Amino acid sequence: MSTGRPVALVGGASTVWGVRAATWSELVQEAGARLFAAVPGLAAADVDSLFVGAAEPERFAFQSHVAPLAAELLGLAPHRIVQRTELACASGQSAIRSAYAAIAAGLSEVAVVLGVEKMNLPSMAEANTSMACVMDRPWDGAHGATAPPFFAMVAQRHMLEYGTTPEQLAGVSVKNHRFANSNPDAQFYEKKFSREKLLGLPLVAPPLRLGDCSSMTDGAAAVVLVAGEKARQYTDTPAWVRGSGQHASWHNLANSGSLTDWVGMRSAAREALGSAGITAQQLDFAELHDCFTISELIEYEMLGLCPRGQGGRYLEEGQTEIGGDVVVNPRGGLLGCGHPLGATGVAQAVEVYRQFTHSVPPARQVPDPEWALVHNLSGSANVHSMMVYQRGS
Amino acid sequence: MSTGRPVALVGGASTVWGVRAATWSELVQEAGARLFAAVPGLAAADVDSLFVGAAEPERFAFQSHVAPLAAELLGLAPHRIVQRTELACASGQSAIRSAYAAIAAGLSEVAVVLGVEKMNLPSMAEANTSMACVMDRPWDGAHGATAPPFFAMVAQRHMLEYGTTPEQLAGVSVKNHRFANSNPDAQFYEKKFSREKLLGLPLVAPPLRLGDCSSMTDGAAAVVLVAGEKARQYTDTPAWVRGSGQHASWHNLANSGSLTDWVGMRSAAREALGSAGITAQQLDFAELHDCFTISELIEYEMLGLCPRGQGGRYLEEGQTEIGGDVVVNPRGGLLGCGHPLGATGVAQAVEVYRQFTHSVPPARQVPDPEWALVHNLSGSANVHSMMVYQRGS
Repeated sequence: MSTGRPVALVGGASTVWGVRAATWSELVQEAGARLFAAVPGLAAADVDSLFVGAAEPERFAFQSHVAPLAAELLGLAPHRIVQRTELACASGQSAIRSAYAAIAAGLSEVAVVLGVEKMNLPSMAEANTSMACVMDRPWDGAHGATAPPFFAMVAQRHMLEYGTTPEQLAGVSVKNHRFANSNPDAQFYEKKFSREKLLGLPLVAPPLRLGDCSSMTDGAAAVVLVAGEKARQYTDTPAWVRGSGQHASWHNLANSGSLTDWVGMRSAAREALGSAGITAQQLDFAELHDCFTISELIEYEMLGLCPRGQGGRYLEEGQTEIGGDVVVNPRGGLLGCGHPLGATGVAQAVEVYRQFTHSVPPARQVPDPEWALVHNLSGSANVHSMMVYQRGS
Repeated sequence: MSTGRPVALVGGASTVWGVRAATWSELVQEAGARLFAAVPGLAAADVDSLFVGAAEPERFAFQSHVAPLAAELLGLAPHRIVQRTELACASGQSAIRSAYAAIAAGLSEVAVVLGVEKMNLPSMAEANTSMACVMDRPWDGAHGATAPPFFAMVAQRHMLEYGTTPEQLAGVSVKNHRFANSNPDAQFYEKKFSREKLLGLPLVAPPLRLGDCSSMTDGAAAVVLVAGEKARQYTDTPAWVRGSGQHASWHNLANSGSLTDWVGMRSAAREALGSAGITAQQLDFAELHDCFTISELIEYEMLGLCPRGQGGRYLEEGQTEIGGDVVVNPRGGLLGCGHPLGATGVAQAVEVYRQFTHSVPPARQVPDPEWALVHNLSGSANVHSMMVYQRGS
């Protein structure tokens, strides 16, 4: 954990996510307007740094050098630090970690973190090319190993090793879509998905069906992180950053080991929970990276919430519902909210703040939460990034 | 300046830069091999973080999610922190600042920073599209305002306001190409450029001729930054990070102010030099961002080395040659070395370490240097990033 000074998350906001008739720039402006509305004490002149999480604006939005452009669109320019971080699907989390490091090191006092991705284009052929870039492209991406086929292999293997069923996979999607029904920012806000309906949707990459996969989504989200001594200027309920962990293992698929044992996640969790001084069992809720249904089941196991191979059973027992051991993805997850790559990690942090301040609808409010974990993975589940937050009072 | 612990740069290396018959991945591997050769005490297992500066690998190299891939190619995986930063032409500097913040905050002990760009493609039409992305694309880039036309406007204006001449512009190129003649890593290592020859080269965007513009270059560079208490394990002569500054002003050209008064550079310099506790006059040398000849002249002025408008005269007086006030770009600059976007800031830091350790050829060795500044700009000269280093003994 950091040897630097304490850092707190003091508020945030999200745009509506979905297939949006909005440009990249318009999404940024919408996130900015919502952020300033959500954090009334925030003055643009107080913000001394902006960290942008964005995975592929160069391909999806034909725009690079996005950090200073975003600063201008947010009404924040001029200021001291701008930076964009890219870590594929974990780009937003990476931007939050950068802001955290800058504040802990004393380089910034008040940082805005923006996550944004505009993914839906007139031609989705371009989008497919873009997604192939996320893998080791000449070795894996060029041969079709984009995310759905990769996670389909993971699911096949988990079924073979542990007897996990399509019904258990669908169960993750049912839960997260149900939570998303109380989140007006979610792509699938008003869409109902029963297990039966999900099991009848088209196969994308067997055994994964359409409802097992998160979506191509347009959206943005933003949060404010500040030096600890400034936290009370912005909120009565700071979300303190108490732990942080990351682990990167092999990128090329030929080098990776077990498909179902995500070493990187176990390491990142050990570091993040260890630095916070808590166990996974002490978490009140967790925002996990359910890019596919199988991901969430394996994440239960890697986090140590249940034994290896028992993710499906743990889900069926209701342990990740409100009232269970640890509520997972009350926001609605990537499955229910959509997955605008760079925005996801930031929106998960927004949910932490909203849960801590009891400002979400009752259907998804975790009872009296004190500890929360946010997790993102990227690529072939080879990179895992986490942060642990504690509610201040 | 940071409230965190001290950070030192303890070594680095560069690949040969130029139009290379090497892929993006091969450039990374070459930089890695040279880094481990240059820092004999560096063990892969000691490196706990990798920060990659890369501007547009998604477009130039069809590869995103580059940080974990680079970790694997460098022989560093698995490890704790990977992150790529993008800040267009200042991406390398931004990666160094991220590593610095992470170490100062206690999140990392030994960080490798890699800068890399593969820019030369079979079709340079793709490259033009990519460069247009760096500006506010729909407003500026799409109408032709890429870097050469923008800096041509800057040069025209500086000529109008201050009487700067084409001969003074060429003088910058003569100096930096001469320095590059003692740098075997440089794209123009063995190429001779007299003022007369430069003034006869084709116009790119009047008044800028081919020799006034830095090149599209393939190349990579890497440095090692460590927590202060570990510095002596790697070197007898650490380069201590003493100051850091950044400033981002308006991105959209319609919002920017004077073409010749770079407010952002003056602010960044005030912060970087102020936090180091020195004046510009105390610098022994500076690696400035001479993406175009006019840039270096204005940078003399913004750094406070000479009065406004006197950059050309200051150059002609030889004040930025060895033996002058402050040696500028002894490495050979972007003009002499080429400009692989994400690699430039990292290679400039390599030069700082080499100068401090007296390990460059006599033709470019600054006599007994103690203080050095590295500067990068990005976009329409709207973002400026700097670091100040002091030689340890």
